[in-house]
Amino acid sequence: MSSLTPLANFADLRYLLRQLPAIDGNAVAAARAREAVLLKPAGALGRLEQIASWLAGWQGRHPPRIEHTAIFVFAGNHGVADQGVSAYPATVTAAMVESFEAGGAAINQLARIAGAELHVVPLRLDRPTHDFTLQPAMDEAACVAALNTGLTAPDDALDVLAVGEMGIGNTTVAAALATALFAEAGEHPDPAQWVGAGTGVDATGMAQKSAVISRALARHEAVLGDPLEVLRHFGGFELAAILGAIVAGRLRRTPVVLDGFVATAAAAVLQRLRPDALDHCLAGHVSAERGHRRLLAELGLRPLLDLDLRLGEGTGAALALGLLRAAAACHSGMATFAEAGVAASPNKGA
Amino acid sequence: MSSLTPLANFADLRYLLRQLPAIDGNAVAAARAREAVLLKPAGALGRLEQIASWLAGWQGRHPPRIEHTAIFVFAGNHGVADQGVSAYPATVTAAMVESFEAGGAAINQLARIAGAELHVVPLRLDRPTHDFTLQPAMDEAACVAALNTGLTAPDDALDVLAVGEMGIGNTTVAAALATALFAEAGEHPDPAQWVGAGTGVDATGMAQKSAVISRALARHEAVLGDPLEVLRHFGGFELAAILGAIVAGRLRRTPVVLDGFVATAAAAVLQRLRPDALDHCLAGHVSAERGHRRLLAELGLRPLLDLDLRLGEGTGAALALGLLRAAAACHSGMATFAEAGVAASPNKGA
Repeated sequence: MSSLTPLANFADLRYLLRQLPAIDGNAVAAARAREAVLLKPAGALGRLEQIASWLAGWQGRHPPRIEHTAIFVFAGNHGVADQGVSAYPATVTAAMVESFEAGGAAINQLARIAGAELHVVPLRLDRPTHDFTLQPAMDEAACVAALNTGLTAPDDALDVLAVGEMGIGNTTVAAALATALFAEAGEHPDPAQWVGAGTGVDATGMAQKSAVISRALARHEAVLGDPLEVLRHFGGFELAAILGAIVAGRLRRTPVVLDGFVATAAAAVLQRLRPDALDHCLAGHVSAERGHRRLLAELGLRPLLDLDLRLGEGTGAALALGLLRAAAACHSGMATFAEAGVAASPNKGA
Repeated sequence: MSSLTPLANFADLRYLLRQLPAIDGNAVAAARAREAVLLKPAGALGRLEQIASWLAGWQGRHPPRIEHTAIFVFAGNHGVADQGVSAYPATVTAAMVESFEAGGAAINQLARIAGAELHVVPLRLDRPTHDFTLQPAMDEAACVAALNTGLTAPDDALDVLAVGEMGIGNTTVAAALATALFAEAGEHPDPAQWVGAGTGVDATGMAQKSAVISRALARHEAVLGDPLEVLRHFGGFELAAILGAIVAGRLRRTPVVLDGFVATAAAAVLQRLRPDALDHCLAGHVSAERGHRRLLAELGLRPLLDLDLRLGEGTGAALALGLLRAAAACHSGMATFAEAGVAASPNKGA
């Protein structure tokens, strides 16, 4: 149950990212060898087979285990909410955290169905990030503190970790990050393709979100080449915590399931820092928030589910945990052809 | 626990299909009214919200319940297997039924994960249907017996019913049905677009499947306008049983989850008999079997999952049951805005 050592500054994170552990090739080989003799035509369980190998490889053991799972919901507030980018007031973030604690939110029901622990982690909700249209959202110390919250949140006993978030205004933050991180060199970054309805703004609201982001991109143009500075300038605390938790998963050999657009935007910062840093992550779903499908494509992540969710809270990741459990159960519980007394070799000539 | 009255002949089924119950509009309205006040932006749970209303409407009660679920796997053998259309010999059907009973197959693991009963129903495996390239697969009495097996299988205590199958050669049967049911008037029916790899045949095997189907379509050309005669001529017993079980679900107010290509082909016969006969059915997934995506599109069914499965056995439907359970849990377990003390009205002007 030891904690990971907290970071002192960005340089510590950059150092840590140079020494991420790789996948366990032996565990992957063992998983593939077992899949090949299980009682089904080769490959007939599709993505469930891939998940079993992925779990084994990133857990570093065979068979993979999926008994102790947890969903972390990081919550933060955003200065940019003052710019009228959300359909709800910023006070809703704290109210939703109370609802998570009272058990009445969607994620409470879905965590129970998934058999997963639910951990809700509010990050200084009474002191939002600065409004990024006026100044950097965070200074380095505040950003590092949020990164550390995520880095030290999961213990080493988890088999799988799911990450989600709550934060009024954070789809604007995520769209700003995506715009900055994936701008084509030499082109004027265009937020419009990354901006969606969030909690439910209309076309006018979306145009407002784009305008707010464009203004901020111009202000912070000098730092757009450095993903970590992009995170610091646009925010937010819960996104930094998600990034920290994803790194913790890698260091602890705990595969990670990402939730929606905001969680994926946090993950994207990490991927821009080191291209293979998300290899231990699965996209739980693709949400109805407009930029998410494109962002997943940029990251080379194929979502497990596509159910038009656009709630956040870790809900899509929680649903995906059920599929991971199913994959592990098939992998471990099925008989082999030999055990079942069925000839494995098909009539290839048919 | 009363049984439905068995059919005496095709005319009985045609009569029954004229009096299928409709959706319960009051239950749907009650479900939608509750969704509108639950603690989330309107529509933010996407398909989970639609599932909750669909469950309520077809169960005829609000809130919908999903405690007692069952997966029925119907198994049959096919004379056309003699034409070398499968990668496996026909003896594998019975061997797989034994594996289902022993608990070693994929569906055993997935039924357990889904918290669903598993019922395996073999249909006279020692007496396959006739080879449809030579004569009709079944006479009316044999087809009606198989329909009755499905019609009388589920009792009235089920909240949701999932249907799947096992039968060496049955993707060829399903492709033949799809070709016959969806041939454009006046055009020569083309099986190639409906034929896939099944258990794993190669391109030569697929060409062989197409050729076998083309020959049989020519032989049985006179009956292609009658979906029930198409079922009788091409088979098979397990497909007829699935059709019967889908009808039983409608009559008993038990929503139905379809598995893959073969189960959907059986459902397609019903839809061609009465266009709204599948309104109480959800497509659990779209499989990797080539014709399935197209068949779902023809039926206007949007699958819940897309995981490259191509195993049958009810595996995709079993995975989808987890999503139905999640939908019902959110619908019943979430707090309302009022209960949570959160203002429901967004800042529309933002």
